[in-house]
Amino acid sequence: MTRVKLKSKETLSDKAYKFIRDSIISGDVRGGELLTEKRIGEQLNMSRTPVKRALTRLEQEGYLKSVDGVGTIVLELSLKDLSDIYEVRIAIEKIAMKTSIRNIKDYEIDRLEKDLYKILEDKNNNKYISERYLISKDEETHRLILENSANNYIKTIYSSIKGQIDRYQHEAYALTDTTVESTRYHLEILKCIKNRNLEAAQDILEKHLKWSYEVLVNEFTRLI
Amino acid sequence: MTRVKLKSKETLSDKAYKFIRDSIISGDVRGGELLTEKRIGEQLNMSRTPVKRALTRLEQEGYLKSVDGVGTIVLELSLKDLSDIYEVRIAIEKIAMKTSIRNIKDYEIDRLEKDLYKILEDKNNNKYISERYLISKDEETHRLILENSANNYIKTIYSSIKGQIDRYQHEAYALTDTTVESTRYHLEILKCIKNRNLEAAQDILEKHLKWSYEVLVNEFTRLI
Repeated sequence: MTRVKLKSKETLSDKAYKFIRDSIISGDVRGGELLTEKRIGEQLNMSRTPVKRALTRLEQEGYLKSVDGVGTIVLELSLKDLSDIYEVRIAIEKIAMKTSIRNIKDYEIDRLEKDLYKILEDKNNNKYISERYLISKDEETHRLILENSANNYIKTIYSSIKGQIDRYQHEAYALTDTTVESTRYHLEILKCIKNRNLEAAQDILEKHLKWSYEVLVNEFTRLI
Repeated sequence: MTRVKLKSKETLSDKAYKFIRDSIISGDVRGGELLTEKRIGEQLNMSRTPVKRALTRLEQEGYLKSVDGVGTIVLELSLKDLSDIYEVRIAIEKIAMKTSIRNIKDYEIDRLEKDLYKILEDKNNNKYISERYLISKDEETHRLILENSANNYIKTIYSSIKGQIDRYQHEAYALTDTTVESTRYHLEILKCIKNRNLEAAQDILEKHLKWSYEVLVNEFTRLI
Protein backbone atom coordinates (compact mmCIF):
# COMPACT_ATOMS: atom_id res chain seq x y z
CA MET A 1 0.00 0.00 0.00
CA THR A 2 2.99 2.31 0.24
CA ARG A 3 2.87 2.74 -3.53
CA VAL A 4 -0.12 5.07 -3.29
CA LYS A 5 1.16 8.39 -1.99
CA LEU A 6 -1.46 10.90 -0.98
CA LYS A 7 -1.23 14.64 -0.52
CA SER A 8 -2.73 15.75 2.75
CA LYS A 9 -6.54 15.67 2.67
CA GLU A 10 -6.60 13.91 -0.72
CA THR A 11 -8.61 10.76 -0.21
CA LEU A 12 -8.32 7.53 -2.19
CA SER A 13 -11.60 8.43 -3.84
CA ASP A 14 -10.21 11.85 -4.90
CA LYS A 15 -7.26 10.05 -6.38
CA ALA A 16 -9.50 7.66 -8.32
CA TYR A 17 -11.67 10.58 -9.44
CA LYS A 18 -8.70 12.50 -10.85
CA PHE A 19 -7.25 9.42 -12.53
CA ILE A 20 -10.49 8.49 -14.32
CA ARG A 21 -11.32 12.12 -15.19
CA ASP A 22 -7.86 12.73 -16.65
CA SER A 23 -8.13 9.53 -18.69
CA ILE A 24 -11.43 10.73 -20.17
CA ILE A 25 -10.31 14.33 -20.80
CA SER A 26 -7.06 13.26 -22.43
CA GLY A 27 -8.89 10.79 -24.64
CA ASP A 28 -7.12 7.68 -23.25
CA VAL A 29 -10.60 6.41 -22.44
CA ARG A 30 -13.14 7.11 -25.19
CA GLY A 31 -16.89 7.58 -25.39
CA GLY A 32 -18.75 4.29 -25.33
CA GLU A 33 -16.09 2.45 -23.30
CA LEU A 34 -17.18 0.36 -20.34
CA LEU A 35 -15.52 1.01 -16.98
CA THR A 36 -15.56 -1.54 -14.17
CA GLU A 37 -14.87 -0.83 -10.51
CA LYS A 38 -12.87 -4.02 -10.28
CA ARG A 39 -10.42 -3.19 -13.05
CA ILE A 40 -9.89 0.41 -11.98
CA GLY A 41 -9.42 -0.73 -8.39
CA GLU A 42 -6.73 -3.20 -9.47
CA GLN A 43 -5.03 -0.58 -11.63
CA LEU A 44 -4.87 1.92 -8.76
CA ASN A 45 -4.23 -0.68 -6.08
CA MET A 46 -7.28 0.27 -4.01
CA SER A 47 -10.56 -1.30 -2.96
CA ARG A 48 -13.81 -0.88 -4.89
CA THR A 49 -15.42 1.53 -2.40
CA PRO A 50 -13.39 4.67 -3.26
CA VAL A 51 -13.65 3.80 -6.97
CA LYS A 52 -17.44 3.57 -6.66
CA ARG A 53 -17.55 7.05 -5.08
CA ALA A 54 -15.37 8.48 -7.85
CA LEU A 55 -17.63 6.98 -10.54
CA THR A 56 -20.74 8.44 -8.88
CA ARG A 57 -19.15 11.89 -8.83
CA LEU A 58 -18.16 11.65 -12.50
CA GLU A 59 -21.68 10.53 -13.36
CA GLN A 60 -23.07 13.64 -11.64
CA GLU A 61 -20.67 15.79 -13.64
CA GLY A 62 -21.86 14.29 -16.91
CA TYR A 63 -18.89 12.14 -17.94
CA LEU A 64 -20.40 8.74 -17.26
CA LYS A 65 -23.69 6.91 -17.21
CA SER A 66 -24.31 3.84 -15.10
CA VAL A 67 -26.47 1.32 -16.92
CA ASP A 68 -28.23 -1.29 -14.81
CA GLY A 69 -26.86 -4.76 -15.35
CA VAL A 70 -24.13 -3.49 -17.67
CA GLY A 71 -21.82 -1.16 -15.75
CA THR A 72 -20.54 2.35 -16.17
CA ILE A 73 -20.27 3.73 -19.70
CA VAL A 74 -18.18 6.74 -20.75
CA LEU A 75 -20.57 9.18 -22.44
CA GLU A 76 -19.89 10.18 -26.04
CA LEU A 77 -19.14 13.84 -26.65
CA SER A 78 -22.20 15.53 -28.06
CA LEU A 79 -22.86 18.87 -29.75
CA LYS A 80 -25.83 19.33 -27.42
CA ASP A 81 -23.53 19.12 -24.37
CA LEU A 82 -21.01 21.46 -25.96
CA SER A 83 -23.75 24.02 -26.51
CA ASP A 84 -25.08 23.61 -22.93
CA ILE A 85 -21.60 24.04 -21.47
CA TYR A 86 -20.81 27.16 -23.49
CA GLU A 87 -24.14 28.72 -22.52
CA VAL A 88 -23.17 28.36 -18.85
CA ARG A 89 -19.53 29.26 -19.49
CA ILE A 90 -20.41 32.59 -21.11
CA ALA A 91 -22.74 33.56 -18.24
CA ILE A 92 -20.20 32.59 -15.57
CA GLU A 93 -17.21 34.36 -17.17
CA LYS A 94 -19.26 37.51 -17.69
CA ILE A 95 -20.25 37.52 -14.01
CA ALA A 96 -16.60 36.98 -13.07
CA MET A 97 -15.61 39.94 -15.23
CA LYS A 98 -17.87 42.29 -13.25
CA THR A 99 -15.44 42.31 -10.34
CA SER A 100 -12.25 41.01 -11.96
CA ILE A 101 -12.06 44.14 -14.04
CA ARG A 102 -11.31 46.05 -10.85
CA ASN A 103 -9.17 43.36 -9.21
CA ILE A 104 -6.73 42.33 -11.94
CA LYS A 105 -3.43 44.16 -11.53
CA ASP A 106 -1.78 46.06 -14.37
CA TYR A 107 1.44 44.06 -14.00
CA GLU A 108 -0.51 40.80 -14.42
CA ILE A 109 -1.94 42.09 -17.69
CA ASP A 110 1.43 43.39 -18.89
CA ARG A 111 3.16 40.07 -18.26
CA LEU A 112 0.50 38.07 -20.12
CA GLU A 113 0.31 40.61 -22.95
CA LYS A 114 4.06 40.25 -23.50
CA ASP A 115 3.74 36.46 -23.86
CA LEU A 116 0.81 36.82 -26.25
CA TYR A 117 2.61 39.35 -28.47
CA LYS A 118 5.57 36.98 -28.55
CA ILE A 119 3.27 34.20 -29.82
CA LEU A 120 2.08 36.41 -32.69
CA GLU A 121 5.66 37.32 -33.51
CA ASP A 122 6.88 33.71 -33.45
CA LYS A 123 3.90 32.67 -35.56
CA ASN A 124 4.72 35.40 -38.05
CA ASN A 125 8.30 34.15 -38.26
CA ASN A 126 7.10 30.55 -38.67
CA LYS A 127 8.74 29.56 -35.42
CA TYR A 128 7.53 26.42 -33.73
CA ILE A 129 5.24 26.98 -30.72
CA SER A 130 4.19 23.92 -28.74
CA GLU A 131 0.52 23.06 -28.38
CA ARG A 132 1.02 22.78 -24.63
CA TYR A 133 2.34 26.35 -24.41
CA LEU A 134 -0.55 27.75 -26.47
CA ILE A 135 -3.10 25.95 -24.27
CA SER A 136 -1.36 27.22 -21.13
CA LYS A 137 -1.59 30.85 -22.29
CA ASP A 138 -5.25 30.41 -23.28
CA GLU A 139 -5.97 29.01 -19.82
CA GLU A 140 -3.98 31.77 -18.16
CA THR A 141 -6.13 34.46 -19.78
CA HIS A 142 -9.41 32.90 -18.67
CA ARG A 143 -8.03 31.99 -15.24
CA LEU A 144 -7.03 35.61 -14.69
CA ILE A 145 -10.69 36.60 -15.09
CA LEU A 146 -12.12 33.75 -13.01
CA GLU A 147 -9.68 33.82 -10.14
CA ASN A 148 -9.84 37.56 -9.66
CA SER A 149 -13.61 37.49 -9.36
CA ALA A 150 -14.96 38.52 -5.96
CA ASN A 151 -17.91 36.14 -6.34
CA ASN A 152 -17.19 33.15 -4.12
CA TYR A 153 -19.44 30.78 -6.06
CA ILE A 154 -17.94 31.35 -9.50
CA LYS A 155 -14.84 29.23 -9.00
CA THR A 156 -16.73 26.17 -7.74
CA ILE A 157 -19.20 26.31 -10.61
CA TYR A 158 -16.48 26.84 -13.18
CA SER A 159 -14.41 23.95 -11.91
CA SER A 160 -17.45 21.67 -12.24
CA ILE A 161 -17.64 22.34 -16.01
CA LYS A 162 -13.94 22.96 -16.76
CA GLY A 163 -13.17 19.29 -17.34
CA GLN A 164 -15.89 18.99 -19.97
CA ILE A 165 -14.60 22.10 -21.75
CA ASP A 166 -11.09 20.60 -21.78
CA ARG A 167 -12.42 17.32 -23.09
CA TYR A 168 -13.94 18.94 -26.17
CA GLN A 169 -10.88 21.07 -26.78
CA HIS A 170 -8.62 18.05 -26.47
CA GLU A 171 -10.75 15.96 -28.80
CA ALA A 172 -11.05 18.63 -31.47
CA TYR A 173 -7.69 20.35 -31.12
CA ALA A 174 -5.31 21.04 -33.95
CA LEU A 175 -7.49 20.34 -36.96
CA THR A 176 -7.58 24.05 -37.65
CA ASP A 177 -4.83 26.40 -36.56
CA THR A 178 -6.59 29.24 -34.77
CA THR A 179 -3.55 30.51 -32.86
CA VAL A 180 -3.48 33.98 -34.37
CA GLU A 181 -7.22 34.65 -34.15
CA SER A 182 -7.44 33.28 -30.61
CA THR A 183 -4.40 35.26 -29.41
CA ARG A 184 -5.77 38.48 -30.90
CA TYR A 185 -9.03 37.94 -29.06
CA HIS A 186 -7.15 37.45 -25.78
CA LEU A 187 -5.12 40.61 -26.36
CA GLU A 188 -8.29 42.58 -27.06
CA ILE A 189 -9.89 41.27 -23.84
CA LEU A 190 -6.81 42.27 -21.86
CA LYS A 191 -6.85 45.75 -23.42
CA CYS A 192 -10.46 46.30 -22.28
CA ILE A 193 -9.58 45.12 -18.77
CA LYS A 194 -6.61 47.48 -18.69
CA ASN A 195 -8.93 50.35 -19.65
CA ARG A 196 -11.30 49.14 -16.89
CA ASN A 197 -14.12 49.25 -19.42
CA LEU A 198 -16.57 46.61 -18.16
CA GLU A 199 -19.11 46.77 -20.95
CA ALA A 200 -16.49 46.48 -23.69
CA ALA A 201 -14.70 43.70 -21.81
CA GLN A 202 -17.90 41.67 -21.38
CA ASP A 203 -18.83 42.17 -25.03
CA ILE A 204 -15.49 41.04 -26.42
CA LEU A 205 -15.37 38.14 -23.94
CA GLU A 206 -18.79 36.95 -25.11
CA LYS A 207 -17.84 37.40 -28.75
CA HIS A 208 -14.62 35.44 -28.20
CA LEU A 209 -16.37 32.56 -26.43
CA LYS A 210 -19.05 32.35 -29.13
CA TRP A 211 -16.31 32.25 -31.73
CA SER A 212 -14.46 29.57 -29.76
CA TYR A 213 -17.69 27.57 -29.55
CA GLU A 214 -18.18 27.79 -33.33
CA VAL A 215 -14.60 26.62 -33.93
CA LEU A 216 -15.17 23.62 -31.67
CA VAL A 217 -18.50 22.80 -33.34
CA ASN A 218 -16.89 22.91 -36.79
CA GLU A 219 -13.91 20.76 -35.81
CA PHE A 220 -16.09 18.42 -33.85
CA THR A 221 -18.55 17.99 -36.73
CA ARG A 222 -15.65 16.96 -38.94
CA LEU A 223 -14.55 14.39 -36.37
CA ILE A 224 -17.88 12.56 -36.07
CA MET B 1 -25.87 -0.73 12.78
CA THR B 2 -29.41 -1.66 11.73
CA ARG B 3 -30.57 1.77 12.92
CA VAL B 4 -29.05 3.46 9.90
CA LYS B 5 -31.30 2.72 6.91
CA LEU B 6 -29.96 3.69 3.54
CA LYS B 7 -31.74 4.21 0.26
CA SER B 8 -30.06 2.40 -2.61
CA LYS B 9 -26.83 4.14 -3.63
CA GLU B 10 -26.98 6.58 -0.68
CA THR B 11 -23.68 6.21 1.11
CA LEU B 12 -23.01 6.90 4.79
CA SER B 13 -21.21 10.05 3.72
CA ASP B 14 -24.29 11.22 1.73
CA LYS B 15 -26.36 10.64 4.85
CA ALA B 16 -23.97 12.65 7.01
CA TYR B 17 -23.86 15.39 4.35
CA LYS B 18 -27.66 15.73 4.28
CA PHE B 19 -27.94 15.64 8.06
CA ILE B 20 -25.36 18.41 8.62
CA ARG B 21 -26.63 20.50 5.68
CA ASP B 22 -30.24 20.31 6.89
CA SER B 23 -29.16 21.28 10.40
CA ILE B 24 -27.44 24.38 9.02
CA ILE B 25 -30.23 25.37 6.61
CA SER B 26 -32.93 24.94 9.25
CA GLY B 27 -30.91 26.98 11.74
CA ASP B 28 -30.51 24.14 14.28
CA VAL B 29 -26.79 24.73 13.92
CA ARG B 30 -25.85 28.42 13.72
CA GLY B 31 -23.01 30.43 12.27
CA GLY B 32 -19.92 30.35 14.47
CA GLU B 33 -20.64 26.92 15.94
CA LEU B 34 -17.85 24.36 16.05
CA LEU B 35 -18.50 20.94 14.54
CA THR B 36 -16.41 17.92 15.44
CA GLU B 37 -16.20 14.71 13.45
CA LYS B 38 -16.31 12.69 16.64
CA ARG B 39 -19.59 14.13 17.94
CA ILE B 40 -21.38 13.97 14.58
CA GLY B 41 -20.13 10.40 14.11
CA GLU B 42 -21.54 9.42 17.50
CA GLN B 43 -24.85 11.15 16.78
CA LEU B 44 -25.26 9.33 13.46
CA ASN B 45 -23.75 6.11 14.69
CA MET B 46 -21.05 6.00 12.03
CA SER B 47 -17.27 6.18 11.84
CA ARG B 48 -15.35 9.42 11.32
CA THR B 49 -14.37 8.70 7.71
CA PRO B 50 -17.80 9.35 6.08
CA VAL B 51 -18.29 12.37 8.36
CA LYS B 52 -14.95 13.81 7.23
CA ARG B 53 -16.01 13.44 3.59
CA ALA B 54 -19.32 15.19 4.28
CA LEU B 55 -17.56 18.09 6.00
CA THR B 56 -15.15 18.51 3.08
CA ARG B 57 -18.08 18.67 0.63
CA LEU B 58 -19.90 21.25 2.78
CA GLU B 59 -16.72 23.30 2.98
CA GLN B 60 -16.48 23.33 -0.83
CA GLU B 61 -20.12 24.48 -1.02
CA GLY B 62 -19.43 27.38 1.33
CA TYR B 63 -21.20 26.31 4.52
CA LEU B 64 -18.14 25.53 6.63
CA LYS B 65 -14.55 26.48 7.13
CA SER B 66 -11.95 24.18 8.57
CA VAL B 67 -9.53 26.02 10.82
CA ASP B 68 -6.21 24.33 11.56
CA GLY B 69 -5.91 23.23 15.15
CA VAL B 70 -9.47 24.28 15.95
CA GLY B 71 -11.86 22.22 13.86
CA THR B 72 -14.71 22.93 11.50
CA ILE B 73 -16.67 26.14 11.96
CA VAL B 74 -20.12 26.89 10.53
CA LEU B 75 -19.80 30.07 8.49
CA GLU B 76 -21.93 33.06 9.44
CA LEU B 77 -24.44 34.23 6.87
CA SER B 78 -23.12 37.28 5.10
CA LEU B 79 -24.62 39.91 2.82
CA LYS B 80 -21.66 39.43 0.51
CA ASP B 81 -22.54 35.74 0.07
CA LEU B 82 -26.20 36.54 -0.45
CA SER B 83 -25.25 38.97 -3.23
CA ASP B 84 -22.86 36.44 -4.85
CA ILE B 85 -25.52 33.74 -4.79
CA TYR B 86 -28.22 35.92 -6.30
CA GLU B 87 -25.87 37.06 -9.06
CA VAL B 88 -25.39 33.42 -10.05
CA ARG B 89 -29.04 32.53 -9.45
CA ILE B 90 -30.32 35.23 -11.83
CA ALA B 91 -27.94 34.13 -14.60
CA ILE B 92 -28.81 30.44 -14.16
CA GLU B 93 -32.59 30.91 -14.07
CA LYS B 94 -32.48 33.15 -17.14
CA ILE B 95 -30.54 30.48 -19.05
CA ALA B 96 -33.06 27.87 -17.90
CA MET B 97 -35.91 30.05 -19.16
CA LYS B 98 -34.48 30.04 -22.70
CA THR B 99 -35.64 26.47 -23.25
CA SER B 100 -38.20 26.05 -20.46
CA ILE B 101 -40.43 28.57 -22.16
CA ARG B 102 -40.96 26.04 -24.94
CA ASN B 103 -41.02 22.95 -22.73
CA ILE B 104 -43.43 23.88 -19.92
CA LYS B 105 -46.91 22.52 -20.66
CA ASP B 106 -50.03 24.70 -20.53
CA TYR B 107 -51.70 22.37 -18.03
CA GLU B 108 -48.70 22.73 -15.65
CA ILE B 109 -49.07 26.50 -15.77
CA ASP B 110 -52.86 26.33 -15.33
CA ARG B 111 -52.59 24.11 -12.26
CA LEU B 112 -50.04 26.34 -10.57
CA GLU B 113 -51.88 29.52 -11.53
CA LYS B 114 -55.03 28.18 -9.86
CA ASP B 115 -53.15 27.60 -6.59
CA LEU B 116 -51.58 31.06 -6.73
CA TYR B 117 -54.90 32.82 -7.36
CA LYS B 118 -56.35 30.87 -4.42
CA ILE B 119 -53.53 32.24 -2.21
CA LEU B 120 -54.40 35.82 -3.20
CA GLU B 121 -58.09 35.13 -2.53
CA ASP B 122 -57.43 33.54 0.88
CA LYS B 123 -55.11 36.40 1.78
CA ASN B 124 -57.79 38.88 0.78
CA ASN B 125 -60.30 37.08 3.03
CA ASN B 126 -57.79 37.01 5.90
CA LYS B 127 -57.71 33.22 5.83
CA TYR B 128 -54.73 31.47 7.39
CA ILE B 129 -52.16 30.13 4.92
CA SER B 130 -49.30 28.09 6.30
CA GLU B 131 -45.70 29.23 5.77
CA ARG B 132 -44.86 25.75 4.54
CA TYR B 133 -47.53 25.95 1.81
CA LEU B 134 -46.35 29.38 0.65
CA ILE B 135 -42.75 28.20 0.43
CA SER B 136 -43.82 25.08 -1.48
CA LYS B 137 -45.62 27.18 -4.13
CA ASP B 138 -42.68 29.55 -4.44
CA GLU B 139 -40.37 26.57 -4.96
CA GLU B 140 -42.82 25.00 -7.44
CA THR B 141 -42.70 28.10 -9.65
CA HIS B 142 -38.91 28.21 -9.81
CA ARG B 143 -38.62 24.44 -10.11
CA LEU B 144 -40.94 24.51 -13.13
CA ILE B 145 -38.45 26.78 -14.89
CA LEU B 146 -35.32 24.91 -13.81
CA GLU B 147 -36.52 21.37 -14.38
CA ASN B 148 -37.95 22.06 -17.82
CA SER B 149 -34.68 23.50 -19.04
CA ALA B 150 -32.99 21.52 -21.80
CA ASN B 151 -29.54 22.54 -20.51
CA ASN B 152 -28.09 19.50 -18.75
CA TYR B 153 -25.73 21.53 -16.56
CA ILE B 154 -28.28 23.92 -15.09
CA LYS B 155 -29.75 21.49 -12.56
CA THR B 156 -26.39 20.46 -11.13
CA ILE B 157 -25.26 24.05 -10.73
CA TYR B 158 -28.55 25.15 -9.21
CA SER B 159 -28.57 22.33 -6.71
CA SER B 160 -25.10 23.37 -5.56
CA ILE B 161 -26.39 26.84 -4.54
CA LYS B 162 -30.00 25.93 -3.61
CA GLY B 163 -29.13 25.07 -0.01
CA GLN B 164 -27.51 28.47 0.56
CA ILE B 165 -30.56 30.25 -0.89
CA ASP B 166 -32.80 28.24 1.46
CA ARG B 167 -30.58 29.05 4.39
CA TYR B 168 -31.00 32.80 3.94
CA GLN B 169 -34.71 32.49 3.32
CA HIS B 170 -35.12 30.37 6.42
CA GLU B 171 -33.12 32.75 8.57
CA ALA B 172 -34.91 35.88 7.40
CA TYR B 173 -38.39 34.52 6.78
CA ALA B 174 -41.59 36.06 8.12
CA LEU B 175 -40.33 39.39 9.37
CA THR B 176 -42.18 41.04 6.53
CA ASP B 177 -45.24 39.50 4.89
CA THR B 178 -44.51 39.56 1.16
CA THR B 179 -47.06 36.92 0.17
CA VAL B 180 -49.16 39.13 -2.09
CA GLU B 181 -46.26 40.80 -3.89
CA SER B 182 -44.38 37.55 -4.34
CA THR B 183 -47.47 35.69 -5.61
CA ARG B 184 -48.24 38.43 -8.11
CA TYR B 185 -44.69 38.21 -9.46
CA HIS B 186 -45.05 34.46 -9.88
CA LEU B 187 -48.36 34.88 -11.69
CA GLU B 188 -46.82 37.44 -14.02
CA ILE B 189 -43.93 35.12 -14.81
CA LEU B 190 -46.35 32.28 -15.58
CA LYS B 191 -48.37 34.56 -17.87
CA CYS B 192 -45.26 35.40 -19.91
CA ILE B 193 -44.40 31.72 -20.17
CA LYS B 194 -47.93 30.92 -21.33
CA ASN B 195 -47.60 33.59 -24.02
CA ARG B 196 -44.22 32.01 -24.92
CA ASN B 197 -42.67 35.47 -24.77
CA LEU B 198 -39.03 34.79 -23.83
CA GLU B 199 -37.84 38.36 -23.52
CA ALA B 200 -40.72 39.40 -21.27
CA ALA B 201 -40.39 36.22 -19.20
CA GLN B 202 -36.65 36.79 -18.64
CA ASP B 203 -37.21 40.44 -17.77
CA ILE B 204 -39.91 39.78 -15.17
CA LEU B 205 -37.93 36.83 -13.75
CA GLU B 206 -34.88 39.06 -13.27
CA LYS B 207 -37.00 41.83 -11.78
CA HIS B 208 -38.63 39.35 -9.39
CA LEU B 209 -35.31 37.87 -8.26
CA LYS B 210 -33.79 41.31 -7.71
CA TRP B 211 -36.84 42.25 -5.65
CA SER B 212 -36.55 39.00 -3.69
CA TYR B 213 -32.86 39.74 -3.05
CA GLU B 214 -33.72 43.23 -1.75
CA VAL B 215 -36.36 41.77 0.59
CA LEU B 216 -33.82 39.31 1.98
CA VAL B 217 -31.18 42.01 2.39
CA ASN B 218 -33.63 44.21 4.29
CA GLU B 219 -34.84 41.44 6.58
CA PHE B 220 -31.36 40.14 7.05
CA THR B 221 -29.98 43.58 7.95
CA ARG B 222 -32.62 43.86 10.64
CA LEU B 223 -31.58 40.47 12.03
CA ILE B 224 -27.91 41.26 12.44
